[in-house]
Amino acid sequence: MVATARKNRGPVVDCDIHNAVWPGALDPYLAKRWRRHGQLFGSRTHPGSLYPKGSPAAARHDAWPPSGRPPGGDLEFMRKQHLDPEGIEYGILNCLGPAGTQLNAEYSSALCRAVNEWQIAEWLEKEPRLRAGVAVPYEDAELAVKEIDRFADHPGFVQVLLIVRTAEPLGRRKYWKIYEAAERNNLPVGIHFGGGARGVPITASGWPSYYIEDHTDMAQAFQAHVVSLVCEGVFERFPGLRVVLIEGGFAWLPSLMWRLDKHWKRLKEEVPHLKRRPSDYIREHMWVTTQPIEEPHNPRHLLQVLDHLGGSDRVMFSTDYPHWDYDDPDRAFRVRLPEEDRRRIFAGNAKALYGLR
Amino acid sequence: MVATARKNRGPVVDCDIHNAVWPGALDPYLAKRWRRHGQLFGSRTHPGSLYPKGSPAAARHDAWPPSGRPPGGDLEFMRKQHLDPEGIEYGILNCLGPAGTQLNAEYSSALCRAVNEWQIAEWLEKEPRLRAGVAVPYEDAELAVKEIDRFADHPGFVQVLLIVRTAEPLGRRKYWKIYEAAERNNLPVGIHFGGGARGVPITASGWPSYYIEDHTDMAQAFQAHVVSLVCEGVFERFPGLRVVLIEGGFAWLPSLMWRLDKHWKRLKEEVPHLKRRPSDYIREHMWVTTQPIEEPHNPRHLLQVLDHLGGSDRVMFSTDYPHWDYDDPDRAFRVRLPEEDRRRIFAGNAKALYGLR
Repeated sequence: MVATARKNRGPVVDCDIHNAVWPGALDPYLAKRWRRHGQLFGSRTHPGSLYPKGSPAAARHDAWPPSGRPPGGDLEFMRKQHLDPEGIEYGILNCLGPAGTQLNAEYSSALCRAVNEWQIAEWLEKEPRLRAGVAVPYEDAELAVKEIDRFADHPGFVQVLLIVRTAEPLGRRKYWKIYEAAERNNLPVGIHFGGGARGVPITASGWPSYYIEDHTDMAQAFQAHVVSLVCEGVFERFPGLRVVLIEGGFAWLPSLMWRLDKHWKRLKEEVPHLKRRPSDYIREHMWVTTQPIEEPHNPRHLLQVLDHLGGSDRVMFSTDYPHWDYDDPDRAFRVRLPEEDRRRIFAGNAKALYGLR
Repeated sequence: MVATARKNRGPVVDCDIHNAVWPGALDPYLAKRWRRHGQLFGSRTHPGSLYPKGSPAAARHDAWPPSGRPPGGDLEFMRKQHLDPEGIEYGILNCLGPAGTQLNAEYSSALCRAVNEWQIAEWLEKEPRLRAGVAVPYEDAELAVKEIDRFADHPGFVQVLLIVRTAEPLGRRKYWKIYEAAERNNLPVGIHFGGGARGVPITASGWPSYYIEDHTDMAQAFQAHVVSLVCEGVFERFPGLRVVLIEGGFAWLPSLMWRLDKHWKRLKEEVPHLKRRPSDYIREHMWVTTQPIEEPHNPRHLLQVLDHLGGSDRVMFSTDYPHWDYDDPDRAFRVRLPEEDRRRIFAGNAKALYGLR
């Protein structure tokens, strides 16, 4: 049954898989000074969207490996539960966790380096289907650049990984050195759901009461970065930069392009560094992953949304394995995609973007 | 030419006109104690989205009345420039300004009362086409209720007016007494673009650099309130409550309904007070005004957006006169609307909602 579905579907590139750091995993890659720091002071970050107690590690209930490691923390189990049965030709690992967002920038840097070395040793060199994002201490661009330059040459790293709830909108100058390094190393910049934003509330009117709100409102953080990256002229400054919005959905993007283009027509004198319509930059420089895919009440409306986006060439399938809101490759789309769109979304776009062969 | 356009178009209800308080206008309606307070201490609020220097009062350059009053501050000029030539059958006044958002709650209360009395004397009793929203000190629900109950009986007041950048998401309990009073008085609650949110940044990742960003990101504040009002169960608690989203656009609403419904299916145990799908509450209890209307690259896609919304019965035309980003009734829709939709959007929906005859 699974094999049939897989065969009908063709190859899948899963653009959002989470590998988890198990307890002690980073110790071999941390200097004694930072191991000691972790033991004494631990992680110090601003908490973001806290996952519900009933879903520890935000995981599917069936995703806890028998080995006792956390969900996403056991490669053999990941192969058996996800990569093999779902026919994943390539999977992009986005290792979440507190490494990149530590308030102590040097500790953040040391943790990111350890995460990256651990990813090489425990994932990329053990499983040829996997690729990964370079973890970086993203609130300090100079330190982030060091990690990018350190790991960009390893063929397993295919993007630079940022988290969407940053301290400032991502178009601002404090982040530009990251884009310079990503462009120079020919790596897309992935921006993933989550993060603590150094205490900035997730809505324009403060903190919501419920997790379901936090989870829904996260799309707004993506919207703000799209607006910021475009309006600050980041794509004029770094014309080779490619940005991937991961786990933000995408059905909100057409209306944002329309709104921004409309305002730009009347306000372009404020942003004379923009040489083209805002939506032109978005269409050229931005990719989106599908999960959590929006589910129109009339499933055929999703085809209209793809049309509003200008086509399917920037949309890439993702599951979010092993998290609770996983999208199944066979069921995520409730409408029959035209064959060419299907091939692009499930594999072609990601292969082209990430250089997968 | 204008007359022809108007005739072809039929009657228009403009759901967003801004009347402006001219210097000294409120003095006759303020107790000496508060006039003195204003002279000595002035307005103390958190600034929100600051309008560009080149557009004082955020106004169209041609909207400055010869009388020297601010744009929107001269009824006779408003009649000549807007109400008469555009064939406005009814216009809903949303008086912006610092009255409702003063940090000093009692001063806020006094200013709102003065604004409301001034609106009766200078606008509602002088021009039968105009209706208004009750200004309220919205961060203190008990004081807001006093203003609602004081003015609700006047036939010129047709809604309670809030600003979108509040200190907390509007579903939270601190605002519930406002909804109880609005429901009891059979007044919709309008939520208008703007405000300072007591210092909360407008994005989930801090402050953007440009006005065009602020202006575009404001849609996110509306999104957060939709999510909050639904998830907190406000519409279960106040089943007669009607909410109008003013100057937030609307093309983003379908994707938000889809996203929220999808999350609710898996997270409904967190919000057991919800008896129906989130989108069911939105469809039943929420209205939107059109300006700044999103302009799809292919104008026909706007008809698909209306379809995604579930129809045109909650969409109400607005111009935002006299502000710079005014939508012209003859040019706002770049696609020919089916006749029934046109009549609803330009007049019927607003007449039904606000009880205009």
